[in-house]
Parts: sequence; C-alpha cells; structure tokens
Amino acid sequence: MKKRGSKESARGSAKGEKTEEEIVGRAMRIAAVEGLGALSIGRLAKELRMSKSGLFVHFGSKEKLEMAVVERACDLFSDRILLPAEEEATPGIEQVWALCDRWLKFIEKRVLPGGYFFTGAFWERAPQDGPIARRIRQIIEEWLTALRRAVDGARRRGEIRAEVDAERTSFQLNSLLIGAQWSYLLAEEDHSKARPAILEKLGSLATEDIPATAFDSMRNWNRYLEDRHE
Amino acid sequence: MKKRGSKESARGSAKGEKTEEEIVGRAMRIAAVEGLGALSIGRLAKELRMSKSGLFVHFGSKEKLEMAVVERACDLFSDRILLPAEEEATPGIEQVWALCDRWLKFIEKRVLPGGYFFTGAFWERAPQDGPIARRIRQIIEEWLTALRRAVDGARRRGEIRAEVDAERTSFQLNSLLIGAQWSYLLAEEDHSKARPAILEKLGSLATEDIPATAFDSMRNWNRYLEDRHE
Repeated sequence: MKKRGSKESARGSAKGEKTEEEIVGRAMRIAAVEGLGALSIGRLAKELRMSKSGLFVHFGSKEKLEMAVVERACDLFSDRILLPAEEEATPGIEQVWALCDRWLKFIEKRVLPGGYFFTGAFWERAPQDGPIARRIRQIIEEWLTALRRAVDGARRRGEIRAEVDAERTSFQLNSLLIGAQWSYLLAEEDHSKARPAILEKLGSLATEDIPATAFDSMRNWNRYLEDRHE
Repeated sequence: MKKRGSKESARGSAKGEKTEEEIVGRAMRIAAVEGLGALSIGRLAKELRMSKSGLFVHFGSKEKLEMAVVERACDLFSDRILLPAEEEATPGIEQVWALCDRWLKFIEKRVLPGGYFFTGAFWERAPQDGPIARRIRQIIEEWLTALRRAVDGARRRGEIRAEVDAERTSFQLNSLLIGAQWSYLLAEEDHSKARPAILEKLGSLATEDIPATAFDSMRNWNRYLEDRHE
C-alpha cells in the first residue's frame, strides 16, 4: 500500500507536493468526521483559502479528490498499523496481537478525528458501486488478509491450535476492533473493553506452548511479551 | 420506541398519514444506502414526483426529514428485532440468542437495502454533534441495554455463569453483529460466520444447566431450543 502512495506524490514538483499534502490532509480530516460525501472542492477552497481553480489543478473532480483521500488514509494505515506490526513483532501470536493493538492505538491516539478512517468510509460507501467503493473494499480485504495470515503464522509456529479456523478468527478479531470504535464513538475514551476481549479470544485459541496465565490480564500479557524479547 | 412513532403519525389526517408514510419510507431507503447526508427535499420531491412545497408541508427542514427517517428506522428496529425477541423467547439465554438472531435475520432478509440502518447512520453521525446524532446514540444505547439486560436475565436464571460481566458480554455480542454486517457489505451473503461465533461465545459463558453439546453446532442449538418449548 505504501509504495503506491510514494509513487503518486513523486509525480509533482517539490513545491506542488507540499501543497497537495496539505490539501489532502485537510480533506482527510473533513472526511474522517463528516464522511467522504461532505467533501467538495468548493468547501476545501474556502477552508484552505485557495481558489477553486487552484484546487482543480490537483484534483479535476470530486472523485479524484475522494480517491486521493482514500489513498492517503491507506498510507497512514500502513505506516501506523500494518508495517510496524509486521516489522517489530515476532511472527506468531505476538504479531496477531500487534496488529490488533496498533489498530486500537490508532483510535486512542486520535491520529484522525472520528477514529479509524476506513470504518466510517466503509459503512458510507460499501453499499454503493464505483471505483471509490471498490478501492475501499480492496483495502479492507488487505487488512483482513494481514490478520488471517498472522493467525495462520501463529498456527504454523504451534502457538495457536491446529484446528483453529484462521478465517473465522480474523472475523472475530476484526469484529472486536470495530466494536471498540463503536464504543468509542458512543462514549469517548470507552475503548477499554477491546483489549481484554482480544486477549480472552487469543487465550481460547492458544496451545500449551504459551502459559495460560499469560492471558489472565493485560499486565500478565505485557510481562509475557517482555520476557519473550529478553 | 414503538409508542413514540405511533403518536407522531396520529397527528395527521388519514390521507396525510399515508403520504407521510410513503415519503419517509422512500427517504429511509435512500439513507440506508447513501447515508442521511444524501437526503434532500429537492431529491425526494423529484423521486416522488411531488412539489418541493408539498414536501415542506410535512418536513419544514432537512433536519426534520432526517429525524422522521431516524424515528421510522427506530420503529422498524423495534418491530422486527426488539419486540418479537422479547415477546417470543423465554427470558434467559434464549432471549440473548433471539436478540442476536433477529438482528442477523434483519440483514439476511434485506429488510432495508444496505442492512441494518443504524450501523451506517451511527458511523456517519456519531462523530458529530446535534439532535440527530444524539437521537442515534440514544437508540444505540437502548439496543445495548436490551442486550445487557438479556445477559443479566440469563445470569439470574442460572444459565450464564455468575461471574460473567454483562457489560463486556454485550460489547462482544454487539461486535460480532456489527462484524457480520461488515462481512455482508464486503461480500454479499457472507454473514455465515456470525451465528457460529455467537453460539461459541454463549457456550463459553453458559453454566452446566445447559448441555455443552447444545453449543456444538447450529443444528444442535436449534434442536435444544425446540426441546425447551415442548
């Protein structure tokens, strides 16, 4: 996902790039709270104190603007969740945890107002047709694949039981993450239920290779992860 | 929730009522797919071949139109999910199941295009302020309360273990349901993972009052429910 974003921005000049960065950044913040539907070149021009024609140089249509926002959100998602979870965590159950944990941190740290960009965008556009809806579905599929592969990896390493269904497990973990954002939007800061629920889920799938007490509390789990790295 | 809807429609004459029914029904279908933001009196007038002024008689503003749609969706939700689950199922674990099962049926039967109205509306409006956002949050709270009460009831009846946290359980069940709609929007008809996941969850919470084999498959579960009613 990251590669694509870099290629896009390499097209413009250094000065043009910076402006495009700012425009897309502002647009992404509007869309994160009010939805992609709330974006318009007119509104952006007003908020950025630019001329409409200046914006048209970058984005010839609302659809191109929407696509740029989706690609930017996708890069952010790769940078903050996918890539670090894959680089920092040892493959296995630890990587499953790292993906979920970083997803939750993304909400907690308010990287974007409104939370994880793609839940909102997905609910807004998934029932529709067209290139934006397809691209959003594709990004969501990539995320679910990353989760499923991590579960598969943990199973191959003997940390998750052989009979566990990776597809079903990634569905359950993703559900808990979406549910956490739901709770967060309902009552800010209330995302505390997700980590214990994910830990409980992982505990029910793990083999005896991991001590059962590791799943008893977040404190035990963090200690277990630290011990692994010593 | 139902009562409120009936009171609202009792205000108009018999003929006015019917027209209002049609207008709100059409508006709800637009909002279910494209979001509340896509609603406008102009668009509705065009689709219903009515004059804008004719529509203004019923809804003086976009906000009033949105609120009418939210109330209609709320009534539909009560009629199809909350009330039947509470009336038909025996209080206890069976009622927890009935709430979840009817929620899924609502999506499967395509009662509304796009699925369960309030997931989309919630993601669209929850990050915002104002009366519509507040009303949506309130309806979602009522749903979570119904789930939590059902879990509590099952615990009091000794069907769910005494130490189970009802709040946490209703979070997990709600997450699986939202996750099911997510899967459905990603790949139509793919909501098959939710029921086994909910059954698995209930099995992990149940006391020995319910035979463990009841949770092994949907077939066993349905047979168990039938036996209870004989």
